[in-house]
Parts: sequence; structure tokens; C-alpha cells
Amino acid sequence: MSLIVVGSMAFDAIETPFGKSDKIVGGAATYIAWSASNFTRSINQVSVVGGDFPKEELKMLEARGVNMEGVQIKEKEKSFFWSGKYHMDMNTRDTLDTQLNVLANFNPVLPDSYQDCEFLMLGNLVPAVQMAVIDQLKKRPKLVVMDTMNFWMETAMDDLEKVLKKVDVLMINDSEARQLSAQYSLVKAANTIMKMGPKFLVIKKGEHGALLFHEDGVFYAPALPLEDVFDPTGAGDTFAGGFIGHIARTKDISFANMKTGIIVGSALASFCVEKFGTTRLKELKHRELEGRIQQFKELVNFDIELLLNDSNAE
Amino acid sequence: MSLIVVGSMAFDAIETPFGKSDKIVGGAATYIAWSASNFTRSINQVSVVGGDFPKEELKMLEARGVNMEGVQIKEKEKSFFWSGKYHMDMNTRDTLDTQLNVLANFNPVLPDSYQDCEFLMLGNLVPAVQMAVIDQLKKRPKLVVMDTMNFWMETAMDDLEKVLKKVDVLMINDSEARQLSAQYSLVKAANTIMKMGPKFLVIKKGEHGALLFHEDGVFYAPALPLEDVFDPTGAGDTFAGGFIGHIARTKDISFANMKTGIIVGSALASFCVEKFGTTRLKELKHRELEGRIQQFKELVNFDIELLLNDSNAE
Repeated sequence: MSLIVVGSMAFDAIETPFGKSDKIVGGAATYIAWSASNFTRSINQVSVVGGDFPKEELKMLEARGVNMEGVQIKEKEKSFFWSGKYHMDMNTRDTLDTQLNVLANFNPVLPDSYQDCEFLMLGNLVPAVQMAVIDQLKKRPKLVVMDTMNFWMETAMDDLEKVLKKVDVLMINDSEARQLSAQYSLVKAANTIMKMGPKFLVIKKGEHGALLFHEDGVFYAPALPLEDVFDPTGAGDTFAGGFIGHIARTKDISFANMKTGIIVGSALASFCVEKFGTTRLKELKHRELEGRIQQFKELVNFDIELLLNDSNAE
Repeated sequence: MSLIVVGSMAFDAIETPFGKSDKIVGGAATYIAWSASNFTRSINQVSVVGGDFPKEELKMLEARGVNMEGVQIKEKEKSFFWSGKYHMDMNTRDTLDTQLNVLANFNPVLPDSYQDCEFLMLGNLVPAVQMAVIDQLKKRPKLVVMDTMNFWMETAMDDLEKVLKKVDVLMINDSEARQLSAQYSLVKAANTIMKMGPKFLVIKKGEHGALLFHEDGVFYAPALPLEDVFDPTGAGDTFAGGFIGHIARTKDISFANMKTGIIVGSALASFCVEKFGTTRLKELKHRELEGRIQQFKELVNFDIELLLNDSNAE
């Protein structure tokens, strides 16, 4: 009974208006595991790395309770590499280089010990690989959460649509929601996308927060206004990790508890962007996380008693 | 003991992706008065119109408790006219035509009956005119709120800086906050602007909600996700009217009550955009407003109890 995390474990080279990183460890599943392991120690990782991926990084995650049995290590190959440059608004970026390497022919193989998982987090990855993991599960998890991106909408839409039919919660950003639904209004976009499979939709809006849609309900989680966003890489994955980590720990998949999951994810993402790569997540203390959750409460909390005129009462 | 509202009463012609209006009644002070009059019947209007401005419009506001003694009617001149076209995102627009007309030589004259006002709402207008109103007040109001725009930062920055020193609350949008402060981060922008005079800063972000800054505190009010934004004209003024209307009614200028004011303003603005011009504000019922306030509560309300791992506790 556990959480399976699927996604890349890789290298990034990042340029922001505030600085430039060397080739550092990244990848969706790396961020998700670091984030989710604040809440649960039963994480089963599914990924693939080359011989160049630091063994030390895998060990650090193992020490946090992340099972690496489903991570293939192809000693003679190289890990996935992405390089990008962020614009001033940090919401847009240019890809400078992408080297698929081990990801080019990734066939995930689910260890027997991963069966009977309750929660499945499909990090952003080739839809066909996400589907291969779903297909290998003998029993449907209690909750399947999927992250994806515009690139797959453009290059693998048929596969993406098949996976969408199998997931409970989809996480995408606002421009991706518009692209996927061909609707400009996010409310209309959400209604369209929820007909494609997911019963819940999370729309991430970066510095503008995140929206959670379910049936007629909607929840708006703010982003904490930050002095500086140092490096947004991995913020979305960290958000996903906090969300699924909280859900897996509480085993409560209600709309109300998903709202909490969104706040938890937002809090973790707000730490992620403070330093390059996974640095801040690795040094994060629980008291810091608790303090930030408190800040989120104060950020949105208001009392209200309306005093209205009589003249236009009805 | 009352609220003074200063601003334009004018004509607009609006084009949006959803339609096109004829020349319809608009102007900052028009929207502010419609919005604020939901809460208080002691509104003293300061504005100028031409002979072409419908007397019926003034009468409708008078029936809501808005005193028109400070509204100059220049029968032989024409009212201010603005025409604009909105882009698909509704956050950006092109000005197609601006005819200053009566606004070109507007010298506001404050009637004696307006003295001793407790609250002053300076709607977006030439900074020198805003200043002329402040200068005519024998006693400083309990709270001075000011709206302005990028146009005055580019054409009348010296005057604008003088007015800023006199106001308690400044309301601007995010790009204007960045322009005024020469800071990209909104947190840094707020800190810079609060050194220019205002003790409180409201940053309006359209569909992304609004931020309220005061000393080290910050409050994030979401915008209600809407199926359609039909016409955003006047949304910022309506927001300001709801804010100052609530404050004037409760006579409470604490940070906590300003948070409530922001929610009230956001709720009113969410109605304003549903139809062209002031149409929706004119037909708005109190039960509708109360219902929408309830939606805002549900939109941001969350319960949280964190369950964290022991491993990285501190």
C-alpha cells in the first residue's frame, strides 16, 4: 500500500536573470520524490538514468524512504539532459538543448513489490510511458494523478488522450489548459477537460497561484508573493509531490482534502524556487514548512460581515 | 461625515472579442458611485460633464444617495470620451480615441457641504486635479484612497509624486506597480512604493485577483474564475467603489477590515464585467452580492492539518 512516482531523473542546466547553474540534478520524479517524502516513506520510484547519474543522489532519496527498485540504471548510456533559459517574468522560458539519451527508449518495468499501490503519480513524461505503467498495474490505484505539458499535446495527442481517460487528477498550467481545450476561459477549459477523463483538474498559474476544479466546485490557492524567484525549475513537480504526498499520507481523496493538498504543494513549491535545482528541498526543515503553511493561511484569511444599504435590498 | 468621490463621468465606446457597444455612460466616478452606493448613502460626487451627459444618469445616482452638488455641468461643452478595444486576454487593451473635452480645463470646486468628509476616494484622473481636491479640504479625511494609471506616470510624474505623499491607500495594477517602482518583484515594488507615501498598497491583477500590502503584511484576494468576461471596462473603478464603500460604511480603517474591503470590491467587480458598462451594477440585487461573497469564501477556504514524516523533523 504505497505511492508510485513515475518520471524523469535527469540533468538540467539553467539560466535565469539571477544566475546560471552548472549541469545539476533534476527531473520530474526527482523533485516529486523529494517533495512527497516529507509526508510518506512508502514511495516507489519508476525512472531510468544513465551511468553518469550520481549514485549518491539515489542514496539520499533512499534514506528518505524512496524505493529505487523500479529505477533502471543503464551504465553505458547517458541520463536525460535539458537546458533552458528563463525570461524576466519566470513564467516563460526557452529550451536551449534537449538530449533524450536514456529516455529515448524507456520501457518502464514495474517490480512485483510495486503492485497493490494506492496512489499513482505520473510525472510529466512521454504519454506512452505513463500508459505502460498504468497497464502493468493489476489493480487500479485509489487515485491516479498526471502531470503533462504542451509538448505532448503537439507531438503525441492520441496517446495523451488515452492516458487522460485513465486518470483522476490532471495537473497542467493555464496556457496548456487553453491549448488542450481550445477554450480561452479557464472555467470553460476546465469543463471541457473534465469531459476528457479527469474528474479533478489543477490549473497551475505560477506566481498567480493554482485553481482546483471538480464538478461545479472551484478552489483558488494563491501563490505566496516572493521577493525573488531564483529558479522556477521543478516548481511544478515539487507542487505535484507535495499534493500527492499529502493525499497519500492522509489517504483522503475528497475535494476538501485536495484543497489542502494544493496548499501543501504551493508551500513546497515556494521553497523550491528559492535556490537552484533541488538544493532548497534537500535542506528543508519541517518547522520551516509549518511556518510557511501558516503564512498561506494568513495570506487568504478574511472575516466578513456585509453592511448593505436598504434602498436596493431584495 | 461622508465619502467624497472624485473622478470622470463620461462616455465610452468599447470593443471586446464578444461584442461592441455604442457610446455608453462610463467614467471612473460613475462606476465608483454605483458600487459604493451599495453600502453608504452619504456620497458626495466631484466631477464635470458636458451638456450631452444624460440628466437621467445623474438622477439615478441621486436616487442612490449620491450628492451631485460638486458635479459641474458645462452645458455648451462635451463630456469626456474614450474608445478602446480589448484583446483576447482582457487584461490588455488599445486606446482607439480619447477626447478630453470638459476634462481639458477641469477646476474642481468643493462645495462647503463637502467639508468634514471622513473618506476621500480619488478616482483615476489628472494628478493635479486630485491634488486640488485635497488642497480644498480644511480637515484631512480619516482615509484617502487613490487610483491612478501608467499614463500619469509617463506624463505627470512630478504631480503624481506630490499626490502620493498625501494618500493612505494607492490602487494600481501589476504592470503599473512595476513601472512606478522600477522593480520587477511585486514584493519589492510594494516596499518601494510604500516609501513614496501610501501606507497601504493594492495591486490589481485582473483575472489573477488582487494583493494588499501593509508594512510586512500581505493579503491575496482571488478573482472569481468566470465563464466569460464580457467587458472589463470599469472593473477597477467598481473594485475601488466596493472597497471604499465598505470602509466608509464600517468606519474601520484597520488592515483586517481592508482585507474585507478587497473581497467586497472583487465581488462587485466580478458583476461589473458581466455586461457592457454600468448595466450590471444598475440591476444588482443585494441577495446576489451576498451570494457572491459566499462564493469568494468557498473559493479560498481550506482546512489544514499537516502530517509530516519524523525523518527530517526539527
